Amino acid sequence: MRVASRRYDVVVGRGCLERLGSELRLRHGGGKAVIVSDANVAPHYLDIAHDSLACAGYQPSQVVLPPGEAQKTLTRAEELYGVLYDRALRRNDVLVALGGGVIGDLTGWVAATYLRGLTFVQVPTTLLAQVDSSVGGKVAVDFRSGKNHVGTFYQPLFVLADVDTLATLPPRELRSGAAEVAKAGLCEGADLLLEVESLAQSGLSSETVSVDLIAGCVEAKAAVVALDEREELGPRAVLNFGHTVGHAIEAATGFKRYTHGEAVGLGLRAALRLSRELCGLSADEEKRGVRLLDRLGLPARFEGATVTDVCDLIARDKKAGEGGVGFVLLKALGQPVLGVNVSLDLQMRVVAWLRGA
Amino acid sequence: MRVASRRYDVVVGRGCLERLGSELRLRHGGGKAVIVSDANVAPHYLDIAHDSLACAGYQPSQVVLPPGEAQKTLTRAEELYGVLYDRALRRNDVLVALGGGVIGDLTGWVAATYLRGLTFVQVPTTLLAQVDSSVGGKVAVDFRSGKNHVGTFYQPLFVLADVDTLATLPPRELRSGAAEVAKAGLCEGADLLLEVESLAQSGLSSETVSVDLIAGCVEAKAAVVALDEREELGPRAVLNFGHTVGHAIEAATGFKRYTHGEAVGLGLRAALRLSRELCGLSADEEKRGVRLLDRLGLPARFEGATVTDVCDLIARDKKAGEGGVGFVLLKALGQPVLGVNVSLDLQMRVVAWLRGA
Repeated sequence: MRVASRRYDVVVGRGCLERLGSELRLRHGGGKAVIVSDANVAPHYLDIAHDSLACAGYQPSQVVLPPGEAQKTLTRAEELYGVLYDRALRRNDVLVALGGGVIGDLTGWVAATYLRGLTFVQVPTTLLAQVDSSVGGKVAVDFRSGKNHVGTFYQPLFVLADVDTLATLPPRELRSGAAEVAKAGLCEGADLLLEVESLAQSGLSSETVSVDLIAGCVEAKAAVVALDEREELGPRAVLNFGHTVGHAIEAATGFKRYTHGEAVGLGLRAALRLSRELCGLSADEEKRGVRLLDRLGLPARFEGATVTDVCDLIARDKKAGEGGVGFVLLKALGQPVLGVNVSLDLQMRVVAWLRGA
Repeated sequence: MRVASRRYDVVVGRGCLERLGSELRLRHGGGKAVIVSDANVAPHYLDIAHDSLACAGYQPSQVVLPPGEAQKTLTRAEELYGVLYDRALRRNDVLVALGGGVIGDLTGWVAATYLRGLTFVQVPTTLLAQVDSSVGGKVAVDFRSGKNHVGTFYQPLFVLADVDTLATLPPRELRSGAAEVAKAGLCEGADLLLEVESLAQSGLSSETVSVDLIAGCVEAKAAVVALDEREELGPRAVLNFGHTVGHAIEAATGFKRYTHGEAVGLGLRAALRLSRELCGLSADEEKRGVRLLDRLGLPARFEGATVTDVCDLIARDKKAGEGGVGFVLLKALGQPVLGVNVSLDLQMRVVAWLRGA
């Protein structure tokens, strides 16, 4: 299945990793290709990617990093620049991100900035990366406590999402990705929400995630991104649903206690609660949203950080303007409202509720 | 005088630095403004810029760096991110580059990448920056021996070029900037070339450089950039005239012996010679070009690096493709030709001639 976003294709399927080289060759003239992956993903999929590129006439080589968000630093990016320098990469050569969101963000950042931009291909192997982070062109590294604080916008040549790669994903990672699937469902409503609920009800596993569901999430995101590629105009803010509080919890707990998806799941609960308090989301709809998050196995409360820490980090949000950060909330399921002002007092109250304090 | 490029204005005048704050306020809603400058420029102009911003209602602060190309590193960029983090800058806040090309490139790189993009204003205070580096949106830092090897494209909100600031520029820096003025004249031909020749004949000084000449160079560059903002299509390559060999000499001599402009002046001599050998530039036209460079006081020969070093670095040029780097040459003054293939043998011969070996 192919989903066309504004500027590039997303190839979604089962077993399509073997076609990486030929899909690249359809869109690119050949050269060196450096695959960046991590030690969790490489043992399963690096050889397939490597051989596919070699068969298509590329000169593949690889860099395998330790796994985890701690890799997304300027220091690691500088090391990668050094590898590209030593391998004498040129602008037309290719960087392939084979892994989850961390590998995609870091590799994309390096591809965007080395020689002012190499050819870049995303091969997301986690649910989170397939439905969310690989699409939209945001690339970044973390800086101090600021997640994605240093970054830019850079679109890949194409995205190749092989749903079969979810088979080797630990259950916790699968649940984490499901938080972004839930976000897409809650914001889109209609058929996509029903599909997500059906997935939650049948039990989340690599077999129950369908190619159609991935493609539906990608389509929903690509449609928003096409309206507002560089987040200048407003519409793209909708993708931030659940992320304002989620990012803050993730940062306040040192990016260690919760995965990004778990933190987003917590942020979605906060956003649903705020939506009921401020935007007229009904109690039944809030309950329906919460039930979805529960069935997907996402955490209901957080620990490991104070309410004040989390609220301080909300104020530092990248998207904050002079008057503070504007929240994305829902007036009904599938009907987002942008730029809602939430008083510090209410922020504290909702975060305290999530803290279970 | 205002020159409109595709996406932003260039304000050129004498004494216009005092209007920095009001010019910014015309285009921006207010907030924090961090001025990045260096220890050569700050004593002369920082207070004027600071006061002008404060009068217009901004909260100005500053960072003053040591001068020189050695500042253009990932390490220095990381320090600047730290300053912005500590001062809690938000996306709508402003970064002002007050200085030459190094300050502009480094500050622009930080502005482009911190929070995926702050508002950015260029206030070039050197001839080189006024006619060349502040216009076009290229921002970068150096990496190992690769000049501008890590960077991106990011347009400022506007550029403010106060020609009066050239009065404090050391003569060597003025001559260096004149190399880019000469490049513009040789590539444009016609009136701009005559104006540059008239400047060279009357003797280069901060008084003889006219607002019209600066505006003419900016217009010529902005017209090219508008055709090809991200250097993807080809036309922008014309700006590289004289730069392929120039960059290589600059890098081979460790970015220390020659200023960027001096290296470009050497590169222009190589490009004129190659143009005669390969593209039919007449001997008289070559002589006319060489006379211009001589009158501007630009060096005729280089030392401090071997011919092999320089040619190796030409092969590593950012713009090199599979078949090597394509040179920009002239078939006549004002008539550039893009993507000319120059054999390694001829490269060696011309670089050896420049080496005086």
